[in-house]
Amino acid sequence: MKNGHTATHSFDIAIDLTPIEADRFLGATSPAYANIVGPFGGVTASLLLNAALSHPDCQGTPIALTVNFAAPINDGELAVLTRLVRANRSTQHWLVEAHQAGSAVALATAVFAERRATWSAPEAAAPPHLPAPQELPRLWMAGLPAWTQRYDMRVIAGGLPDGLDGQPQADSHSSFWVRDDPPRPMDFLSLAAVSDSFFPRIFLRRRRMMPASTVSLTTYFHADQAMLAAQGEDYVLGVARGLAFHQGFFDQSAQIWSRAGELLASSHQIVYYKD
Amino acid sequence: MKNGHTATHSFDIAIDLTPIEADRFLGATSPAYANIVGPFGGVTASLLLNAALSHPDCQGTPIALTVNFAAPINDGELAVLTRLVRANRSTQHWLVEAHQAGSAVALATAVFAERRATWSAPEAAAPPHLPAPQELPRLWMAGLPAWTQRYDMRVIAGGLPDGLDGQPQADSHSSFWVRDDPPRPMDFLSLAAVSDSFFPRIFLRRRRMMPASTVSLTTYFHADQAMLAAQGEDYVLGVARGLAFHQGFFDQSAQIWSRAGELLASSHQIVYYKD
Repeated sequence: MKNGHTATHSFDIAIDLTPIEADRFLGATSPAYANIVGPFGGVTASLLLNAALSHPDCQGTPIALTVNFAAPINDGELAVLTRLVRANRSTQHWLVEAHQAGSAVALATAVFAERRATWSAPEAAAPPHLPAPQELPRLWMAGLPAWTQRYDMRVIAGGLPDGLDGQPQADSHSSFWVRDDPPRPMDFLSLAAVSDSFFPRIFLRRRRMMPASTVSLTTYFHADQAMLAAQGEDYVLGVARGLAFHQGFFDQSAQIWSRAGELLASSHQIVYYKD
Repeated sequence: MKNGHTATHSFDIAIDLTPIEADRFLGATSPAYANIVGPFGGVTASLLLNAALSHPDCQGTPIALTVNFAAPINDGELAVLTRLVRANRSTQHWLVEAHQAGSAVALATAVFAERRATWSAPEAAAPPHLPAPQELPRLWMAGLPAWTQRYDMRVIAGGLPDGLDGQPQADSHSSFWVRDDPPRPMDFLSLAAVSDSFFPRIFLRRRRMMPASTVSLTTYFHADQAMLAAQGEDYVLGVARGLAFHQGFFDQSAQIWSRAGELLASSHQIVYYKD
């Protein structure tokens, strides 16, 4: 219930926080964003970011967010603790922890800054000549955890293999269009969540599902408020791949592109897997 | 002075810590790794990692390290505070802070885990057909900050432009061989430092130097002890590029490859720049 309004979109309900004291908020897991065990990591990342963003001392816009998933999160309440570790004229460094039963289940560092108009330029470009979202079928999520139903995903390349035949493939590259269902204007909070919406790259490499969970997730926000406003409720383009799968951990890197081809966020994570 | 031995390599001196109490160490900046302002960020990252690694409760090997550079670091002593935030049977989550004059100047989260033998495979490959380090001239660092002299760098592509003519170029890709000078066997600590040895990508894009400083640095360790032992004192291959330069912040992603072509680490950072 931020600003006295009651959240109505399922995403806003899932990341809703009640201030308890100066650096303490109360949140809760949401059945709408349930994963196989505990909540979808993207929504946990967004909840932690929301604590800093909601804090009366917060200034600037998000530049970097790292979330470490320290323990399984049980369904129910989360105590969220914030600390403004250091601030200067234009930059703030925050530490945010989520606790259950008195122990940390997730911790995050977040950097906020005032952006200023200066020389700017892209380097990477979004993949060219893509089919429009409307030309592609929506990914069928029946039987998958609840959070996957909260996204309308249209696979361009590298979807879950039709035949989960266990025959390893060499490449984990994916690209897809994605937006909230129901649509919701993109902001930093939903951008943080969608950056984690890629299924684990090991499912593609092994062509089968297996236990896999994000250990640490870092997202860099390239978008400013104007870019988010221009994006609105439209689909974003997500592109992801892994670099190495080694003895129980793999990395994956992703980019989130606006419909207009601007890089909104780049995101990286390291993931535990058990073959 | 770890394990009763006195550090002799300039790198080990720079990251040396004296235990003060259970979760408190004392370190100091080292003139040998001085940057334009304060110390080389890679050695600060390594110092923070070293605090967790040196802690008697530390178990497993580093999987992920995120360092947020919260304020300029002055020459002199650093109080380093550790906290084991959460541990389970095979994974540990640490928080480490460096303080000067009672305020945080850097904070880090680190994940350690026990790796186990399981299905493993590379995906990305090191660039093929590279000239050997001995076939390339050593990068001339005269006039640059002290820390650059601590590395023997051999540029394969994308060095500092000969002509810093201020005419923007479209590509910030670099690749080079690098090792400590004098040589030192690679371990997780030096791997953390070398992951930050790439000069800011904005220097390449703008073809001139300008104020630029890392705000947040994340490194994923793909190497295990056996891979590090096989690497020894040899050169590693560093590859880096940026994706987007926008209103005062750009990202850069790097990979560190062993001489044998194995991915030792992937590293990402977001950097403040002032044009």
